[in-house]
Amino acid sequence: MSGGLDSATCLALARREGYSCFALSFDYGQRHKVELAAAARVAQALGAERHMVAKIGLDAFGGSALTSAIEVPKGRSAGDMGHGIPITYVPARNTIFLSFALAWAEVLECSDIFIGVNALDYSGYPDCRPEFIEAFERLANLATRAGVEGTTHVKIHTPLLHLTKAGIVQLGHELGLEFGLTFSCYDPGPGDRPCGQCDACLLRRKGFEEAGIADR
Amino acid sequence: MSGGLDSATCLALARREGYSCFALSFDYGQRHKVELAAAARVAQALGAERHMVAKIGLDAFGGSALTSAIEVPKGRSAGDMGHGIPITYVPARNTIFLSFALAWAEVLECSDIFIGVNALDYSGYPDCRPEFIEAFERLANLATRAGVEGTTHVKIHTPLLHLTKAGIVQLGHELGLEFGLTFSCYDPGPGDRPCGQCDACLLRRKGFEEAGIADR
Repeated sequence: MSGGLDSATCLALARREGYSCFALSFDYGQRHKVELAAAARVAQALGAERHMVAKIGLDAFGGSALTSAIEVPKGRSAGDMGHGIPITYVPARNTIFLSFALAWAEVLECSDIFIGVNALDYSGYPDCRPEFIEAFERLANLATRAGVEGTTHVKIHTPLLHLTKAGIVQLGHELGLEFGLTFSCYDPGPGDRPCGQCDACLLRRKGFEEAGIADR
Repeated sequence: MSGGLDSATCLALARREGYSCFALSFDYGQRHKVELAAAARVAQALGAERHMVAKIGLDAFGGSALTSAIEVPKGRSAGDMGHGIPITYVPARNTIFLSFALAWAEVLECSDIFIGVNALDYSGYPDCRPEFIEAFERLANLATRAGVEGTTHVKIHTPLLHLTKAGIVQLGHELGLEFGLTFSCYDPGPGDRPCGQCDACLLRRKGFEEAGIADR
């Protein structure tokens, strides 16, 4: 759970479906570490059983504007976002995040993992695609104790995968999500104010506009 | 690279095949953290370009004798080891380790990942099986920039997968590996002496005995 719009909506949905939820966030050297405070707020507001923040130093590897001194691109058009993989892509990030989720799920004896990835209004990350998620689910069922013993089938739930950002805003709204608790910006300024110009800010704004809902 | 027999032999083999090697170890809350010193010795002796130790707190999840207060089993017979998944299994460990390796490989623009897993004389871990490795390789080629752009094919090399422990000892011997640099014990005693009774110690002893080579 990043503390952004998508993961918060995903948690709200899982809660409405009756799941007891264990929320997992990552302190991975991201420049927008303020999102972890948002994640904690959302987890508490939505009644997660626990919220764990795993500390993993992905910044040691470099290679992304989110974890290094590379500048976060600003003011990109929807057309720009639709082409290529941006420099904010963090190498293998969702593979790592899902691996940790799998580890915790195995310890908790949970078989349902939710992740708020989205393949439509997204930034072009390879590890948000349906085929990536399917391959991870297949792996998960070979990687673990349950996979060998044939007891539990691990399911990776991606309820937002095929929604537009506006659709996610609408869904969150229907679920009664307090959007003010969430935080989306990749490159917050002084006082942790959203920059308004990075892909995450622009996609968020577009989503709320298209949904006709105010983003407080 | 754990600093044990298998990963050291794996590195020696990759070096002999002419690869420039970037060695990755994990400080994951293991009780046998002394293995990291062995990993550093081996990486240096075998001429790795770099040796990185990624710190990831798997002990926060619990669920294994290697990362928690659960006792490490001692004196198990080969028959015991052949049945079931032992309590030293760390949930999703190799999935996590390979995910980090994938991240670093992507940043380095490497397409070859070596891992010293072994499916024969092993402790019964689900994430050492050939089908797990195949599923990870498939995932790796969907998870990354290269996977989307179709440029590079990531290959997971497992040269030890079908060797016996004695076969690994023989291979390491042929490659001129200094076995004295390596460390295998799960539960070292005072002065970091190998316990001699955990699965790792017993498998190591058996391997050297069967190979007819002295373990210094």
